[in-house]
Amino acid sequence: MKLSSKVDKLPYSPIRKLVPFAEQAEKSGKKIYYLNIGQPDLPTPEPAIQFLKDNIPEVIAYSHSAGMEELRKHFQRYYQREVGVDLPLSAFLVTTGASEALIFTFSVLLNSGDEVIIPEPMYANYIGFSAVVDAVVKPITSRIENGFALPSVDEFEKLITARTKAIMICNPNNPTGYLYSEEELRQLAEIVKKHDLWLIVDEVYREFTFDGRKHISVLTFDDIRDRTIVIDSVSKRYSACGARIGLVVSANEQFMDAVLRMAQARLSPPTLGQILSLGLLQLPDDVIKSMVKQYEQRRNVTIAELQKMEGVIAPTPSGAFYTVVELPVDDAEEFSKWLLTDFDYEGETVMFAPAGGFYINREYGKRQVRIAFVLETDKMQRAMHILSVALEKYRVMQP
Amino acid sequence: MKLSSKVDKLPYSPIRKLVPFAEQAEKSGKKIYYLNIGQPDLPTPEPAIQFLKDNIPEVIAYSHSAGMEELRKHFQRYYQREVGVDLPLSAFLVTTGASEALIFTFSVLLNSGDEVIIPEPMYANYIGFSAVVDAVVKPITSRIENGFALPSVDEFEKLITARTKAIMICNPNNPTGYLYSEEELRQLAEIVKKHDLWLIVDEVYREFTFDGRKHISVLTFDDIRDRTIVIDSVSKRYSACGARIGLVVSANEQFMDAVLRMAQARLSPPTLGQILSLGLLQLPDDVIKSMVKQYEQRRNVTIAELQKMEGVIAPTPSGAFYTVVELPVDDAEEFSKWLLTDFDYEGETVMFAPAGGFYINREYGKRQVRIAFVLETDKMQRAMHILSVALEKYRVMQP
Repeated sequence: MKLSSKVDKLPYSPIRKLVPFAEQAEKSGKKIYYLNIGQPDLPTPEPAIQFLKDNIPEVIAYSHSAGMEELRKHFQRYYQREVGVDLPLSAFLVTTGASEALIFTFSVLLNSGDEVIIPEPMYANYIGFSAVVDAVVKPITSRIENGFALPSVDEFEKLITARTKAIMICNPNNPTGYLYSEEELRQLAEIVKKHDLWLIVDEVYREFTFDGRKHISVLTFDDIRDRTIVIDSVSKRYSACGARIGLVVSANEQFMDAVLRMAQARLSPPTLGQILSLGLLQLPDDVIKSMVKQYEQRRNVTIAELQKMEGVIAPTPSGAFYTVVELPVDDAEEFSKWLLTDFDYEGETVMFAPAGGFYINREYGKRQVRIAFVLETDKMQRAMHILSVALEKYRVMQP
Repeated sequence: MKLSSKVDKLPYSPIRKLVPFAEQAEKSGKKIYYLNIGQPDLPTPEPAIQFLKDNIPEVIAYSHSAGMEELRKHFQRYYQREVGVDLPLSAFLVTTGASEALIFTFSVLLNSGDEVIIPEPMYANYIGFSAVVDAVVKPITSRIENGFALPSVDEFEKLITARTKAIMICNPNNPTGYLYSEEELRQLAEIVKKHDLWLIVDEVYREFTFDGRKHISVLTFDDIRDRTIVIDSVSKRYSACGARIGLVVSANEQFMDAVLRMAQARLSPPTLGQILSLGLLQLPDDVIKSMVKQYEQRRNVTIAELQKMEGVIAPTPSGAFYTVVELPVDDAEEFSKWLLTDFDYEGETVMFAPAGGFYINREYGKRQVRIAFVLETDKMQRAMHILSVALEKYRVMQP
């Protein structure tokens, strides 16, 4: 009566590890600025909520396993308009959040023991999903000194073995906020062609780019069209994480046929979230643009404050709503815990995600935290001030 | 750039195989009685839909990975009241439909190559989920001549090997409608104890029992408490399939801890479906009771008509809303297709799920179909009349 041996490889969520300490701090009356998770504070656009309320059917039934046809058509048009690719309807399959899109993709591509190369720090759940299918994540470390740019082709090629099936990136990156350049993406394209690999790109933060920079989707590269898989979601783009509506996109018919069979086994994605998404995808473009503008201001404030702090290394992220910074502490997890258990400034403190959990080579992340700039600018400013006071106090305390 | 070898084992959904022919028939103006899928026609209870509309939050955010605490507490009380078991809150984890509950359970219990014994005919997606984790379903055939009762202990023991990790049943059964007796469940309890196996029971149709018979949950057996896992869902009970809210229930802490880690990787079950479910679980008991009464009447009409037809073997199901019947035809899949492509009676026809897809030993199901009694009694009556006319015509046509 044993469990599967895969279970030992299932990580506990790094962003939830400190939650019990936060709960304790809340109970003791401390106010916490939660910068540890990617849960935006912006309201889900009200017209879409109204659309949902107006369109709840009498019988909340299963939808098509690939998602409502009308919703898939909306996504198809969005990809034509915003991403610049013309794909058949069969290239789109609606999933229960990007999470399920990732599980389907890993399940369809990877046998037990197969390898996927992913730059670290990486979204921690990639490690969890690979454990579920008993595959192996080979990390390739991107460095804070380089602003978390893509490692060189050489470094990728050193990791490729007979078991390597895919390279995966997140663009813009969670947790680093790094936006990959066209040159870097072309580098990846050449590697996957040369070594006959799949390229999986998580583009859920696609819209979140700053300083006028434009996101480039690998779907626009015709020469790797058949080996490219894109993961997408409405969660972050519309502040609708709880809708659990994601998307797998690929022009590879054989891949999509296998994904559809997996999708049929689980019957259908959530109907209510799909109706909400129908409302979301009908919103005018400026809804997202104004959201992104707000995140850019939050980033500006956050990074400016961080770069003033002595001993803090804070690259400027060009996308998403995260940044990974190095703190002048020996152990960022201990420090993050201390912020919750032993520190407050005028009754307030901050919560970060220690970055160790985003690395497989944990030592690289030992002094780093991920900060999600998901609160209003004045709150971000205040949170950064609290951090600077905390760092000062922590420094003095150290022997 | 190959796909995983698991993909070859992923079945196409047997209930969707004939869908293109149905679409064609609809286009040609034929009216179809859809008895092929378990999508009830009853409205989702209106007070719960109103509750949802009244409680959509401003930010549709992730919930706790195990589901909203309030919802888990509702389930906990429901299990005390209706199932008769007192379990800690940690024994309940909310999933994206029973489908995800099954995927989590299979992933946590089964390594690649491990075996699970399941009576056939079985819910076809069990085969799909086992393919996803690269496990092996060992079917044990239940016979229509015995009304699909549980096979003997001897037959189970013949199938147990060193790789066997679990026995699984669906009670009441989809596709047969068979309701297992206390004696049969005790038999299973003794086998799993003797051979140190897990017992997985899919109880999503728990409330659907007829003729005054009572469903017995394996959770009430104290001697196997630690090796028992129950799968549940609000889908069928409340006609809310599209909500995608299911449940894993187990008193085994190690198992639930592993399931929680899987749940954390996919972040959260759908928030909107959970809010709807909060509304559903506050409904008075008689809502379900009156639904079940309607299904009992539908069953009565359906079975009475079937038992009148020459050459049809139709056991009387005591639960769920399905029945598997044997038809006087050589190939039930061919016949089911013919009903859509070549037959009509006054412009109308019926659609069934050929039972072959519910068997691994397909020859046992060759002459059988699954009929879901999910339409009103007069429609069921009419559909059965159409079937009897069709069988007569088909008989005459045969050489």
